Amino acid sequence: MESIDIHDVELNGGFWEHYIDLLGEKFLLHQWDILADRADGTAKSGCIRNFMIKAGRAQGSHSRPVFIDSDLAKWLEAVGNYLALRRNDKLASLADEAIALVEAAQDSDGYLDTYFSLNGIRHFSNLRDGHELYVMGHFIEAGVAYHRGTGKRRLLDVAIRMADLVVSVFSAGGECERGLPGHEEIEFALIRLFESTGNRKYLEMAGEFLKRRGAEDNWFDEEKKAPDYREIYPDIGSWGRKYSQNHKSVYDQDEAVGHAVRATYLYTAMAEYARLAGDLRMLEAAKRLWKDIVSGKMYITGAIGSTAVGESFSASYDLPNDSGYCETCASIGLIRFSAMLARSFPDSGYADVEELALYNTVLAGMSYRGDRFFYVNPLESDRKKIDGNPIYSHVRPARPGWYRTACCPPNIARTIPVIGSLAYLVSTDVLVVQMYLDSTVRLSCGASLRFITDYPCDGNLAIKVSGNVPESFRLMVRIPAWCKFKAISISGEKIGTPTFDRGYLVVGDLHDGMTIEISNEMPCRMLHADPRVSADAGLVAVGRGPFIYCVEECDNGPDLSSLVLESVGKTICLDGVPAVFPCVVAEGSRVVFPEGTLYSDLPERYEKTEIRMVPYCFWNNRGEGRMRVWLRCRSIVQRDFP
Amino acid sequence: MESIDIHDVELNGGFWEHYIDLLGEKFLLHQWDILADRADGTAKSGCIRNFMIKAGRAQGSHSRPVFIDSDLAKWLEAVGNYLALRRNDKLASLADEAIALVEAAQDSDGYLDTYFSLNGIRHFSNLRDGHELYVMGHFIEAGVAYHRGTGKRRLLDVAIRMADLVVSVFSAGGECERGLPGHEEIEFALIRLFESTGNRKYLEMAGEFLKRRGAEDNWFDEEKKAPDYREIYPDIGSWGRKYSQNHKSVYDQDEAVGHAVRATYLYTAMAEYARLAGDLRMLEAAKRLWKDIVSGKMYITGAIGSTAVGESFSASYDLPNDSGYCETCASIGLIRFSAMLARSFPDSGYADVEELALYNTVLAGMSYRGDRFFYVNPLESDRKKIDGNPIYSHVRPARPGWYRTACCPPNIARTIPVIGSLAYLVSTDVLVVQMYLDSTVRLSCGASLRFITDYPCDGNLAIKVSGNVPESFRLMVRIPAWCKFKAISISGEKIGTPTFDRGYLVVGDLHDGMTIEISNEMPCRMLHADPRVSADAGLVAVGRGPFIYCVEECDNGPDLSSLVLESVGKTICLDGVPAVFPCVVAEGSRVVFPEGTLYSDLPERYEKTEIRMVPYCFWNNRGEGRMRVWLRCRSIVQRDFP
Repeated sequence: MESIDIHDVELNGGFWEHYIDLLGEKFLLHQWDILADRADGTAKSGCIRNFMIKAGRAQGSHSRPVFIDSDLAKWLEAVGNYLALRRNDKLASLADEAIALVEAAQDSDGYLDTYFSLNGIRHFSNLRDGHELYVMGHFIEAGVAYHRGTGKRRLLDVAIRMADLVVSVFSAGGECERGLPGHEEIEFALIRLFESTGNRKYLEMAGEFLKRRGAEDNWFDEEKKAPDYREIYPDIGSWGRKYSQNHKSVYDQDEAVGHAVRATYLYTAMAEYARLAGDLRMLEAAKRLWKDIVSGKMYITGAIGSTAVGESFSASYDLPNDSGYCETCASIGLIRFSAMLARSFPDSGYADVEELALYNTVLAGMSYRGDRFFYVNPLESDRKKIDGNPIYSHVRPARPGWYRTACCPPNIARTIPVIGSLAYLVSTDVLVVQMYLDSTVRLSCGASLRFITDYPCDGNLAIKVSGNVPESFRLMVRIPAWCKFKAISISGEKIGTPTFDRGYLVVGDLHDGMTIEISNEMPCRMLHADPRVSADAGLVAVGRGPFIYCVEECDNGPDLSSLVLESVGKTICLDGVPAVFPCVVAEGSRVVFPEGTLYSDLPERYEKTEIRMVPYCFWNNRGEGRMRVWLRCRSIVQRDFP
Repeated sequence: MESIDIHDVELNGGFWEHYIDLLGEKFLLHQWDILADRADGTAKSGCIRNFMIKAGRAQGSHSRPVFIDSDLAKWLEAVGNYLALRRNDKLASLADEAIALVEAAQDSDGYLDTYFSLNGIRHFSNLRDGHELYVMGHFIEAGVAYHRGTGKRRLLDVAIRMADLVVSVFSAGGECERGLPGHEEIEFALIRLFESTGNRKYLEMAGEFLKRRGAEDNWFDEEKKAPDYREIYPDIGSWGRKYSQNHKSVYDQDEAVGHAVRATYLYTAMAEYARLAGDLRMLEAAKRLWKDIVSGKMYITGAIGSTAVGESFSASYDLPNDSGYCETCASIGLIRFSAMLARSFPDSGYADVEELALYNTVLAGMSYRGDRFFYVNPLESDRKKIDGNPIYSHVRPARPGWYRTACCPPNIARTIPVIGSLAYLVSTDVLVVQMYLDSTVRLSCGASLRFITDYPCDGNLAIKVSGNVPESFRLMVRIPAWCKFKAISISGEKIGTPTFDRGYLVVGDLHDGMTIEISNEMPCRMLHADPRVSADAGLVAVGRGPFIYCVEECDNGPDLSSLVLESVGKTICLDGVPAVFPCVVAEGSRVVFPEGTLYSDLPERYEKTEIRMVPYCFWNNRGEGRMRVWLRCRSIVQRDFP
């Protein structure tokens, strides 16, 4: 049987239209201005300047941080991903200019890392802290993406030269044959390059890096012994081997530990390497780690990393809403990790997690206008607390314009345009619809499928088939965890007993001209946390569709922790909130407390009030104020599905 | 009219008997062994050895920390306070030996600080970090206490020489005439010395120190300019002037800020100086600061200091139960501060706070056997969380044997034996009964009052008058906030309409042989926090009398945050808990959560269970396990007073 593949995915509008427009019209141009030190009113990045100095086109010393090159790499990847969707000559020309600069800055042996080069530090001499493999990993991902998006090879060739250097230095017999990256990224990048070039040595090198983690003779201790070793991040030593997931073999790891971005980048590579290499033990380990995250270490917003110290995972069920780290990049890592597992295990739970992270934490990571960014995404924010207690000092009560460590903004930029690749998976005879996206999927067999949906405003999806597909070809359409399947009709005729499989609705017998209409209820939901999550004890959160809701000061006054939810609520529009973000209004009350006392044994008194909620991702788009996700509740009668 | 004073207070038994016994039989001897490096199985302190080296009786270098001398000073104060209550030749002889050593170590000009002397640092050259005035303040308090407790002058003379040095160096014309202590303590010590000696210059020096805080030309910046300045605690600089309450004049301070122990030691001195010097503006400032603490910055256990960073106060209503600092010493400071204010303002609210801090946080600071100590007293403890997240790293899941910074254990030791001075205040014609204590108060007029009570097991108090008091003499007996006054009878006859004044029951016409019986209800109470305390939103705590209760793993299993309280509970005895700590059993349930998911929209299911609670101060006396004060609740019907 002929194997069917996805030829391309075109976004037709809908929820993501705004963000795609934003990328081309503002977001990516604004980011370029910052990287090139041309933005007004924002701190200078120095990123492009580092490459200029390295290429001999400018004078000066290196602007930190260590991994700053990756900001440009992610920007190039984002532009490549964007150009796959839309034409934009301005962006293409800026990117081509940047690629020429990158090429000029690259050493003849393929090496590129401005921090090490400009500071005269021996290459690969501090893999624990140095981020060279992280930076080059991002350039490799960028090279693959830019080639796929534009057909241009120049950055892919840069990437191949880098990857060849990495293979020669780090594979058996190379000068760093036991070396491994402190911050994972190169592994997944090499896998991508293997997929793009078909050259298996890249996949093998990725596997080598994965399997080196947790070795008894720790390379990070070894490299310190060199006379020219230079410490870069002394803290990393104090956090121990778990910080870099280097405490045991990846085959034996069963708890998500350490720096949450590093962890998810590792797990993503494990899942995808295991699938491509047929390494079932590694696949099981990846699945176990995913389960550990989602069953005890993930906030309801799809955020991960409960502690700012080491930007790390903490113990299961330790999910403080005010002091958690919840880095935007870590949720992007979780999306990629879940997406890779979904390629091996068709289970709609992976896409549920992807959507939670995407529609909540990742979107919260940027302002609706695309010019301000959160790095940390807490579930409770109050400037007074933040200013008064340094354990919250990593939290910002409003999105800043840029960061010195600016990993998150370009990471959002490279993620949004590939939403099509998250939404659709294909195997020989199945197209798995992971997300509802207003889009057209063209298949390699010539047929195309038009998906029409207002998701996440509602849970309905219509699919129009054009052209012919093989008889065995089926669709598996995910019914999201937050929707209740209502009906499916095919070309107007209701199907009485549809087939479900692992959270998917299965539709076969596709033929030209056929229309499939799926309707799902998408009620407001009252969510409880596992009672072991002490921070959420006795509280509820409101969800509708993939959105988790929060209360903001501008809608509810300053005392958000005195609000008591008394109904599940219904959707409304709120002033200043675009219609694509359905808001929720619920009946509730406000605790009235005796004046002048901090603790009281009097029965609590309540005043009726309406509680107005906005999708969490939209908070802080109408000025600065307090915000809170988890609310008190009283006598909630859960709405039953009909 | 002749002024009546308290001649002495004798403790007759009751709740405090155990702790007084413990002091003499174990606690103070054990602490001596540690200070003298004679304890087995505990880290060596080096405290006595520093004095030996300074006195030329040993060789070696100084054992840190900077303020280690104060451990001995507080121990001597504790012994002095103890010997005022009980005879103990062993302790007296150890203390006399220590006093001789201290005397030998003191410089001829009165200076004593082993850290500065042994390290050859110029005296008073780093007042911000150096703790010399703190150390000497504690020796002055010790000198006064030891003299009062034993009649021996030797340590008092050491103290007077110190104080005279301080006055000559720090008063106008002295070499440090603008200097002030980084860690407050000397102020209150000088006030004590004034009270003991009648020498007003000590009171004036205390006032000078108080009034120097917040000066525009900051001494702590000035002293840094000296060529021989040596930094000791670099962090202190980064925490700013608020850390040492040096950000504005004490007259203008209205928010409790900075290091909580420093703050309360300052406020204590402000309150007492203002009373003695008739400084009403300063008294108002002290009252305002107290109000700021108790209305927004105090845990329900009387603990203060919400953040470990700088061991400091945080913003109002920021009272995290798991990451707060809640230092034992800070609660001792709060007790002293409240007690000093109570001397100026007869209002039972001050004693309510004293009892909360004393019966909960201070008693939790030591094991029931007196050999292990908490420095940090969180309201929630879970070793997994503590080990997994460094923001809890200051929290210990079980009491250690000793600390490198061992300020708390001797602070508890000096506080317990002076409970009599907290319990009774006297002014010209009123004896104010602040606390119910099984004790005898002998008045200067020759009469005595025998107080008989089982408090805090119940809320009743009988008073027997022996001898005659002037006709105008009255008793003001506090009705604690957690008791409901039921009845008073005098020599068997019930009084129909007793007189109340600011939380006190007023009893006049005292005469020889009279018996006053006061009965108060002491129900279990369900306590809510001000809803602005986000950490307690939707939760309740249980109190009975001054005790706040907690649930422990050994009584309720590990999942304490899944417990839901459904009744106010009644007292019971629990195995392993002495009868003086009434326990509470309440009806409740346990949330049963669907397996394998972290968040769920299913209605919560509950299983009936009994919830067993112990007084917070008693936790971790039956092995290590989880602990929690604030609990979920459901449909609580508050018990109404009859």
